[in-house]
Amino acid sequence: MFITPISSLQRPADDIAPMATSEDSLRRGLAEKQSTIDASGNSIRQLKSSGASNSEIDDAVKALNALKLEKTSIETQLKASISGDAYGSVMSRDAFRQAVVNTLERRLFYIPSFKIYRGVAGLYDYGPPGCAVKSNVLAFWRQHFVLEEDMLEVDCPCVTPEVVLKASGHVDKFTDLMVKDEKTGTCYRADHLLKDHCKDKLEKDLAMSADKAAELKHILAVLDDLSAEELGAKIKEYGITSIGSSGVSPGYMRPETAQGIFVNFKDLYYYNGNKLPFAAAQIGQAFRNEISPRQGLLRVREFTLAEIEHFVDPDDKSHPKYSEVKNLEFLMFPRDLQMSGQSAKRLCLGEAVSKGIVNNQTLAYFIGRVYLFLTRLGIDEERLRFRQHLPNEMAHYAADCWDAEIESSYGWIECVGIADRSAYDLRAHTDKSGVALVAQEKFAQPKEVEKLVITPIKKEVGLAFKGNQKMVVEALEAMSEKEAMDMKSVLETKGEVEFEVCTLEKTVTITKKMVTISKEKKKEHQRVFTPSVIEPSFGIGRIIYCLYEHSFYMRPSKAGDEQLNVFRFPPLVAPIKCTVFPLVQNQQYEEVAKNISRSLTAAGISNKKDITGTSIGKRYARTDELGVPFAVTVDSTSSVTIRERDSKDQIRVSIDEVAAVVKEVSEGRATWADILNKYPAHTSLSVKEALLSCKSRN
Amino acid sequence: MFITPISSLQRPADDIAPMATSEDSLRRGLAEKQSTIDASGNSIRQLKSSGASNSEIDDAVKALNALKLEKTSIETQLKASISGDAYGSVMSRDAFRQAVVNTLERRLFYIPSFKIYRGVAGLYDYGPPGCAVKSNVLAFWRQHFVLEEDMLEVDCPCVTPEVVLKASGHVDKFTDLMVKDEKTGTCYRADHLLKDHCKDKLEKDLAMSADKAAELKHILAVLDDLSAEELGAKIKEYGITSIGSSGVSPGYMRPETAQGIFVNFKDLYYYNGNKLPFAAAQIGQAFRNEISPRQGLLRVREFTLAEIEHFVDPDDKSHPKYSEVKNLEFLMFPRDLQMSGQSAKRLCLGEAVSKGIVNNQTLAYFIGRVYLFLTRLGIDEERLRFRQHLPNEMAHYAADCWDAEIESSYGWIECVGIADRSAYDLRAHTDKSGVALVAQEKFAQPKEVEKLVITPIKKEVGLAFKGNQKMVVEALEAMSEKEAMDMKSVLETKGEVEFEVCTLEKTVTITKKMVTISKEKKKEHQRVFTPSVIEPSFGIGRIIYCLYEHSFYMRPSKAGDEQLNVFRFPPLVAPIKCTVFPLVQNQQYEEVAKNISRSLTAAGISNKKDITGTSIGKRYARTDELGVPFAVTVDSTSSVTIRERDSKDQIRVSIDEVAAVVKEVSEGRATWADILNKYPAHTSLSVKEALLSCKSRN
Repeated sequence: MFITPISSLQRPADDIAPMATSEDSLRRGLAEKQSTIDASGNSIRQLKSSGASNSEIDDAVKALNALKLEKTSIETQLKASISGDAYGSVMSRDAFRQAVVNTLERRLFYIPSFKIYRGVAGLYDYGPPGCAVKSNVLAFWRQHFVLEEDMLEVDCPCVTPEVVLKASGHVDKFTDLMVKDEKTGTCYRADHLLKDHCKDKLEKDLAMSADKAAELKHILAVLDDLSAEELGAKIKEYGITSIGSSGVSPGYMRPETAQGIFVNFKDLYYYNGNKLPFAAAQIGQAFRNEISPRQGLLRVREFTLAEIEHFVDPDDKSHPKYSEVKNLEFLMFPRDLQMSGQSAKRLCLGEAVSKGIVNNQTLAYFIGRVYLFLTRLGIDEERLRFRQHLPNEMAHYAADCWDAEIESSYGWIECVGIADRSAYDLRAHTDKSGVALVAQEKFAQPKEVEKLVITPIKKEVGLAFKGNQKMVVEALEAMSEKEAMDMKSVLETKGEVEFEVCTLEKTVTITKKMVTISKEKKKEHQRVFTPSVIEPSFGIGRIIYCLYEHSFYMRPSKAGDEQLNVFRFPPLVAPIKCTVFPLVQNQQYEEVAKNISRSLTAAGISNKKDITGTSIGKRYARTDELGVPFAVTVDSTSSVTIRERDSKDQIRVSIDEVAAVVKEVSEGRATWADILNKYPAHTSLSVKEALLSCKSRN
Repeated sequence: MFITPISSLQRPADDIAPMATSEDSLRRGLAEKQSTIDASGNSIRQLKSSGASNSEIDDAVKALNALKLEKTSIETQLKASISGDAYGSVMSRDAFRQAVVNTLERRLFYIPSFKIYRGVAGLYDYGPPGCAVKSNVLAFWRQHFVLEEDMLEVDCPCVTPEVVLKASGHVDKFTDLMVKDEKTGTCYRADHLLKDHCKDKLEKDLAMSADKAAELKHILAVLDDLSAEELGAKIKEYGITSIGSSGVSPGYMRPETAQGIFVNFKDLYYYNGNKLPFAAAQIGQAFRNEISPRQGLLRVREFTLAEIEHFVDPDDKSHPKYSEVKNLEFLMFPRDLQMSGQSAKRLCLGEAVSKGIVNNQTLAYFIGRVYLFLTRLGIDEERLRFRQHLPNEMAHYAADCWDAEIESSYGWIECVGIADRSAYDLRAHTDKSGVALVAQEKFAQPKEVEKLVITPIKKEVGLAFKGNQKMVVEALEAMSEKEAMDMKSVLETKGEVEFEVCTLEKTVTITKKMVTISKEKKKEHQRVFTPSVIEPSFGIGRIIYCLYEHSFYMRPSKAGDEQLNVFRFPPLVAPIKCTVFPLVQNQQYEEVAKNISRSLTAAGISNKKDITGTSIGKRYARTDELGVPFAVTVDSTSSVTIRERDSKDQIRVSIDEVAAVVKEVSEGRATWADILNKYPAHTSLSVKEALLSCKSRN
């Protein structure tokens, strides 16, 4: 389920908190420097008015200028601290993002949808290379999760009747508070508006006091908890816009794919031989009526979700394959580190479980599998962290939630949510549909259990409370074991007891005649229970966008006269695995190129011929910009060269072998280093150097 | 584009016409027999009243009874003729369909969507095996079309702005005429209602005269051409329901994926190096607001389309790979065979092109590729035909259209539409968006061309026609070469001419002063034109449903006490490629089974363990019903048996080899016959017999 995650993305405590310490001290330093400067200015004015010597005044002015330089230096540091260091030294975040997005749009990874009709905000097409990357990511997701974990994949329609979204809570919860700018008539989500205002101020108003900065950060941290009135008050206080309010109309295109799985629980459980645990999975489109889509490719109106619902016995959340992930170590950002203003830390997953940081083995197992999935796709593990939800972010029923967040030029972006949602969803659909979505555990031996039996005597309750009878009866039946046994003992001694009925918001007097409470021994042959669900939910478009940023780099052309763009995609996700070039325009070479391309196609390896007369360097550059890992150049009719994109190493391989070699290395059955060991290098670059340059990438 | 195809599915001339001859003659025979019977009855009554002898009367009654028997026999033949022979002898179409659908629903190939909320008509989920089949079909589609034909795959949103669907004509054309039953309030599509009535009468009213039958068939044939008034009149005439009418509200979820490709033409053309021909492809969800979905899985509200738009120079529709398909032979049903009441015939594709039956090579190339695609999936080629659209089915702009129709228990179902839509779509979007969606052909040498130049003198036209100036100017500019040259010569001799302006619906007088017409020689460096588009459009859900029917059969259990269901899916589409069973419950065997399953998973082969204690026969039966082609049974710790589903042949293979063997045969790199040759048979069945039984299937 992607709802909490998506809205939590808006909570920027995440992308600011880790740098808070140095930023705070810099703001403080800046303020101090400014007051020193002010003081220094005053003293110069005093010197002047008191007729001090010129040299004395000159010295004071020099000192003042030095102070101003120091101030500028602090400002620069503060700016860098706010925008992060990843891009700081070479180019700004914005410039980096612009370079990536320009390349993506120019090479048709993305196309703004319906561009010839001026586009529609928040809708993007995947052009040919983008579509190929997406389909590679989804194929790997199916291999890594569905096939390897033996999940039951389903495919449900996008169109969803209202009753389902009422049960899930979407219809009620998804009425976001809107504000309308009365001058322009434009609608905004109130929380977005306030958030933007605060972020903007924090980034640009360097002279802001540390106190004021703390106030704005506090607002950002509690944004989700603000009531409609508080939101409105803040927006007015800061003079952001004139306010009105309207509701978003509830839609019937699904906002997530999860509900399709929940409503099918009974059939899927049966299909699995009535055994727990099992997981169901679904890949499909989901829709959000974003009123004012921003953040380009990250916040869109229609997107692909891949969701897993792993159903498990709430009394046993161990996982049979837990040992395969428990030694993994990666950046984790548990609740206590966030609350105490610290940064994410490398933790061992197994330790996080044994220390009680991660709630259970199954949740941890999926965190580990998500880590492996993302890093194998090519996400930089230094810019990937698992952040635990703070108590205020989590639904009351959730046992524990972790988001896989990836750092991009937009800050830390939540790309996968991994939540233990307990029994909430199955219970909600059981209540609404009247169909029991439960599991049974048959006991080998019948078990004798002591059961609490509360029997309200409806006639007596009715006589006493008339129209409130139903509420009182329900409240009696809902008592916990302790409450019931306490009541029993009071009734036995005193004959009556004061009892609070929440739904009536008052206390009533219950007498001995109105209820019998007892414990009875029963033989039970099975246990019937609502399974818990552990839900990893993947925003595929966001993962792909972050992958683009992590894969992108620039390097000088051979002549050194321009910067060339490269995507260092692993072969697994590269949109095209191999290009085939005849070195020169020549019928013989073109024939060889055609045959190699055909054999690659037959082997299922996506490839592209380029038989234009453009220089080989330019053709390599074109192919690097699409992230094609291998290029075959035909410069003879017996053997050809294969060039690897990042190292630019070339090897020589006979024509008969080339398809097999490219297939092996594209499908990950061999590394480029293995290939380098096996075939002669084509250039003067020694194998040893090549290996080194290759190692530094792996 | 799937629109014409879908509505043409409703035209049942297709599934009745091929049998028309025998059916007609049977109806005629039946009517003759009935009148002989009537005459015979009358003569018996006359014999009785005229006091004829008992023996004379007995003979006449015997003769009458013989006639009645003959009549029954003709009725039986007529019934068989109407329902087709495919299922006739063993079980009825309905019973067969029920058996398939029961199996599909019981094994969760499909689940009615939102079943626990009583479902929604026209929406189905793909359960685990169905989802796997679908994803195998799509993967093969990508390999067979996108990869092998080097297509540009794109992925556009489902949400589509109105302007796009206005340009495409959907908004205007898709207002189907609805009729409302005034008693029940239910809405129907008027054409469906009339069609059902006619089909139903034809099937059940055996006493109907051949004339009346011909009338009903005529209505079915011209159904799409009937105006609203004619439809209404017929519905009233036949007393089908009480009529009212309302419109279907235009939706904004796309009814097809094609428009996403058209609006991106300019970018895709550029991506392809500004070269024609090239094809773009898209797989995605499409939506239809079916008011009363029927035909179960064939007519749904949301479905997956896979569409190709192949852009080609209208002056050159040859195809470079045409020779690879031109010798294919399969059932074709050209226009003239349909019009003359004949059946589909096996034709050679190349001959169909050379005789002008198929409009051009590119269209034929795709027909051939579609034939290969469907038969490789497992569609029975005897129940697959390519039917050409009749002139009244085709849009005015279309050059030629063929539907791949698959015979199922519902009759012939249109599953793929292959249309040459000429330049219509790109022109429509050019007009609406103002962005020229055109291609250029640069000439090696500039060409000298003679061009017609029509220059209306606006001032003179304005003086003469005032407010109508614009319409007159446009009409003048729109003249064909012949019209213009005719006008020129009349103006030169007479000084004025009568000219019809369509948009004014009147004739005006044009004088010499109002227009100059000339031919000028110009040097042209390039030709600018709107490409034609050839569009194969696949209804994935329909193909899969027909595949289920073609793959389904029943065979007696070993004990002969029950009929077992089998899906004979080729490994390519089978939802699970292999099951792994320990012969008996035993820890050693289970360990071996686990290892084999793990190695299959690592090789990317979907598999399932079944370690229940159920008898091996029952486990085979379960797996056959899911269409799993191979079953590995562990009966030792060194070697295992592999069983093939349809032949039930078993071979013995060592544990180390089993994953490789299953992978090879599942991925189609070896046939089961190859494997049988290589490994010892496990049962007494000789290899020769096994080969024979295997051959008969291939």
